Amino acid sequence: MTSSNVTAVTKFLDVGEQRYAYRRFGAGPGLPLLFLQHFTGTLDNWDPAVTDPLALGREVILFENAGIGRSSGSVPKTMAGMAQHASAFLDALHLTRCDVLGYSLGGMIAQQMAQDRPKIFRRMILVGTAPRGGEDIMHLEKPSLAGYLNDPKLLGYPVLGKIFFAPTDSSQAEADAVIKRLLRRTQDREPVSGPAVAQAQIAAFREWEVQTENRFATLKNIRQPTLVVNGVHDEMIPVRNSYWLSENLPNAVLMTYPDSGHGSLFQFHESFTKQATAFLASDSAAAPY
Amino acid sequence: MTSSNVTAVTKFLDVGEQRYAYRRFGAGPGLPLLFLQHFTGTLDNWDPAVTDPLALGREVILFENAGIGRSSGSVPKTMAGMAQHASAFLDALHLTRCDVLGYSLGGMIAQQMAQDRPKIFRRMILVGTAPRGGEDIMHLEKPSLAGYLNDPKLLGYPVLGKIFFAPTDSSQAEADAVIKRLLRRTQDREPVSGPAVAQAQIAAFREWEVQTENRFATLKNIRQPTLVVNGVHDEMIPVRNSYWLSENLPNAVLMTYPDSGHGSLFQFHESFTKQATAFLASDSAAAPY
Repeated sequence: MTSSNVTAVTKFLDVGEQRYAYRRFGAGPGLPLLFLQHFTGTLDNWDPAVTDPLALGREVILFENAGIGRSSGSVPKTMAGMAQHASAFLDALHLTRCDVLGYSLGGMIAQQMAQDRPKIFRRMILVGTAPRGGEDIMHLEKPSLAGYLNDPKLLGYPVLGKIFFAPTDSSQAEADAVIKRLLRRTQDREPVSGPAVAQAQIAAFREWEVQTENRFATLKNIRQPTLVVNGVHDEMIPVRNSYWLSENLPNAVLMTYPDSGHGSLFQFHESFTKQATAFLASDSAAAPY
Repeated sequence: MTSSNVTAVTKFLDVGEQRYAYRRFGAGPGLPLLFLQHFTGTLDNWDPAVTDPLALGREVILFENAGIGRSSGSVPKTMAGMAQHASAFLDALHLTRCDVLGYSLGGMIAQQMAQDRPKIFRRMILVGTAPRGGEDIMHLEKPSLAGYLNDPKLLGYPVLGKIFFAPTDSSQAEADAVIKRLLRRTQDREPVSGPAVAQAQIAAFREWEVQTENRFATLKNIRQPTLVVNGVHDEMIPVRNSYWLSENLPNAVLMTYPDSGHGSLFQFHESFTKQATAFLASDSAAAPY
């Protein structure tokens, strides 16, 4: 038994023709916590400093959606399609109720699942994400991101250090520490996502960004106690999207972090895991904890 | 010895010609925590469900600014003037360093003090407040507030129940509970603020609201770890003012509460005091806790 994403064995689950890669580790009294990953991220993009402390109180389940890493199939071009895969995965594990940590793209999938299956999640943590109808979601072509993404000296994890963190010495030092932790896993790693993954997920962001007449009105259907988290300098999915979530979800607490961007949960992993643990420990019907 | 705002004796401190009313109670390893009160509020507007749990870990000092309750003098028409009184009060107590909980008007005074005397506060909690240059600060003439304020059936605490809370059954039930707790103090109460107090404080809000060319630029001088708190449905000082604080203070965590308005700290007193206690317990130079 291992309780770290540095060493946890990658498992596989077959559902019909579809094979899903995942990791499941940890133990404790809490409900299992499903992790839904960010744009192009694989199981190897979960910082052990975030997964491992949470695995002390519950099982954590890191899910590789269709078409990513060693999960078979192709990446759906809508959040609804990705939500269906996550839902099929939970069914195949015979999990009828769990908690969820949805990060970025994963936070949109979590919202879609909560709309589709209101009872599947007890409590939700939504980090660096946006509601349907949100704004400026993953526009990689904008200058603040394109400069780093087109820099040939920045490939793989180092580019994350630029686009997931703030351009301050303190945030960049934490970026380096996160990358070191991600590199501690040396065996049984997932293949890195290629352009096809990125293209399909970008299409899903564009569909998610479409504004309807009653913008954000459907958020009132998500009644779960929810903790919304973001860094105030997030360039990938700006923090105003988290404001809209916390203002329109009926039962959400918002926490923002200073001096940080999209990767605030990794930068402030001690605080984040402490807050997440306290939030998940609550059995109240209300989000405040 | 008492450790509750229901029973704590009101004390008086003379500084030259000026007399300040205050209450000081509680004990513990933490630095003293200075409470700076909201628009027209007196010492009797501090919910014991907020003061008393915090008094378990430190002394709490509830300060009655000049011209309020039994403090002598007249209410200054600027935050700077009110900050000078609070500063003189701390000097007379020989307190050179403390923590502060600034609520609404009190949060503006706390920011002014942090600008004037950068070392006076170790950690700051700013609830339901706004930065200098903020927006829609205490415009009592707007319909969402004036309707309640001009209702002859609502006088004293009951009007607070309307304008400090959200118009939902759940928030209104908490408003009733807060008012009941405030009424538990029956002896040694402060006189209620009259129109002169309100007029001077409104003048101070108008001066605070003036926007300068580099809006919010001076917030970078406030380096203290800061916890910013607000209810997402605050009609008196809308939550976007708290967003500006947390985006422009270099070292601030923001927490917002759902289903609540200006009085979120009272409505969610269990969560608020738990979070405030954890925040104040930290000795880190960074705000995240």
